[in-house]
Amino acid sequence: MSIIDELAKLGKMSEEHIKKYLLMNTSKEFEEVILYQINTGGKRIRPALTLASCLACEGDINEAFPAAASVEIAHNYSLILDDIIDHSELRRGKPTVWKKYGLSTAILVAVHYRESATEALNDTHSPKEFNRIFAKTLKLLIDGERLDILFEQAGRRDEPYVVQNRYSDVGFEDYLNMIYKKTGALIEASCVFGGLSARADQKILEALSSYGKMLGYAFQIGDDIIDLFGKTEKTGKKVGGDIIEHKLGNAVVALALQELEEKYRDKLIEILRKEKISQDDLDEAINIIKNYSSAREKAEKLRKEYGRKAIESLSILPENKGKEYLVKLAGFISIRDF
Amino acid sequence: MSIIDELAKLGKMSEEHIKKYLLMNTSKEFEEVILYQINTGGKRIRPALTLASCLACEGDINEAFPAAASVEIAHNYSLILDDIIDHSELRRGKPTVWKKYGLSTAILVAVHYRESATEALNDTHSPKEFNRIFAKTLKLLIDGERLDILFEQAGRRDEPYVVQNRYSDVGFEDYLNMIYKKTGALIEASCVFGGLSARADQKILEALSSYGKMLGYAFQIGDDIIDLFGKTEKTGKKVGGDIIEHKLGNAVVALALQELEEKYRDKLIEILRKEKISQDDLDEAINIIKNYSSAREKAEKLRKEYGRKAIESLSILPENKGKEYLVKLAGFISIRDF
Repeated sequence: MSIIDELAKLGKMSEEHIKKYLLMNTSKEFEEVILYQINTGGKRIRPALTLASCLACEGDINEAFPAAASVEIAHNYSLILDDIIDHSELRRGKPTVWKKYGLSTAILVAVHYRESATEALNDTHSPKEFNRIFAKTLKLLIDGERLDILFEQAGRRDEPYVVQNRYSDVGFEDYLNMIYKKTGALIEASCVFGGLSARADQKILEALSSYGKMLGYAFQIGDDIIDLFGKTEKTGKKVGGDIIEHKLGNAVVALALQELEEKYRDKLIEILRKEKISQDDLDEAINIIKNYSSAREKAEKLRKEYGRKAIESLSILPENKGKEYLVKLAGFISIRDF
Repeated sequence: MSIIDELAKLGKMSEEHIKKYLLMNTSKEFEEVILYQINTGGKRIRPALTLASCLACEGDINEAFPAAASVEIAHNYSLILDDIIDHSELRRGKPTVWKKYGLSTAILVAVHYRESATEALNDTHSPKEFNRIFAKTLKLLIDGERLDILFEQAGRRDEPYVVQNRYSDVGFEDYLNMIYKKTGALIEASCVFGGLSARADQKILEALSSYGKMLGYAFQIGDDIIDLFGKTEKTGKKVGGDIIEHKLGNAVVALALQELEEKYRDKLIEILRKEKISQDDLDEAINIIKNYSSAREKAEKLRKEYGRKAIESLSILPENKGKEYLVKLAGFISIRDF
């Protein structure tokens, strides 16, 4: 069994808990609508991280279910809102919540998810501590999403804040800051929540925090590589979605811009700034990156480095099944191509 | 000084706390955008209710500031989202958040507010208990908003869930259920939070809960009367906004439909179901309600009854300044015309 299948099996154990909190204090007639998003799929990797981290600390897995549920609910909360913000009509091959039910209903479903996360955290042994981390994490997520949008080089003509505040230049540090907030922070919290559920001491919590952070970088850089160079047969996604969405917030794009000769750099930026990016534009952008920069190789190297750092972070943890999950996952995330 | 001015002065004491939580864990460059909504105004009646309820229980007002901040933040969170859902371009004479900054930014600001509420509640003496009530209250709010939308008789053609699930008939019990959720629950929580902050016993908390619930009914029924019969000079709002928005969820409309002769009833519903309601339609609808039903008088009587019940709920509380605020407010809410 692959590590992803193993973790999916572990994450699946939180399924009933997730649904219990989503349906808590919910009108009967709204239940089906509430469950739609969570039932579109997903591998439950975040709750699996919570449960694996709890096991890695030799904790009782039953103590970690509420926190595990909260991170998966938070993830889906952000997906519903991201799909609205990005006008995405499909997710995992199914209509997104706003596309299926309409904008108002999607907003109501999303904010309902948010309350379910609080209901879940209230069943942990220390709601105050979990809630503190959760609120901080979600504020990071929100700011990461804001930055990701501001890194776009065109589009959103009807959004005054975005039009007026775009970043015309995104350094690699800016990129790392954005992805830590947008992706890494919730992965980090998922791991820390496992340790907290196991009542691990501060040193162990810091190790899990570092692991989650590094894993988040490796994961997102991998996502960015796959976005530009993945195979549609494997990913089910169109190649170059980030370029079509005008994003500077892609590791490979950001790295390419650092080293491209001026004429290629200008051309790449020109394409990203086109209001409508054609297939020819997209092909040209990818060719520039592929043929005139080593951005792909650099990104590959970087994600392996982050994967390695993630594993190193765990050195103070005892050897056990939980740690094995975490180590294997970091290995997989460092090389995955889908 | 009127009771509203007195309460506004009390509510104002929570101002710095509200802003502290809104700016907690916030990027410097986003602060101005975050503060825009809260600075559009509002009388801070909900935090005033928390503080007055705390005083009514002879509690230390300093203990109630975090909870007071949380209810005002929750209120503004719901306003940002309501304005998106209702496509409202103005609030308190200023552009709404989505109108000013764009939809994506408005969504991000709203969900940032939600996290600030958790940060505030974490500073209460019992985050678990406050968070439990808060999450339950917000789920009620969400469901109330859902029902309010489903009670609309036309519009939202691009929202499949709404189009397919509209209520064609709204009984007065349905109406009361909707307004309790949409308006009453947060007012109730504002009062209960004051009692909890004062560490009041269960009986007192129940009295405050009942007061808040009854006040919520009186407040919303009053709002509905003012919507149809208020004077624009006093309210600053267009008369009949609820009818233009196709709402059955207005006390006067719901009561009128119960007693109108069939031909007038049919006409009123016909108007509410028009995709576009003209000024003539609106005048006709209001004339039907005014001339062929006693709905306005019934609604007036009802809000006075709820106001009276609110005051009665407080009988077990000691006589003091805090209780005086609450009693006076219920009296005012029973008769206000703006």
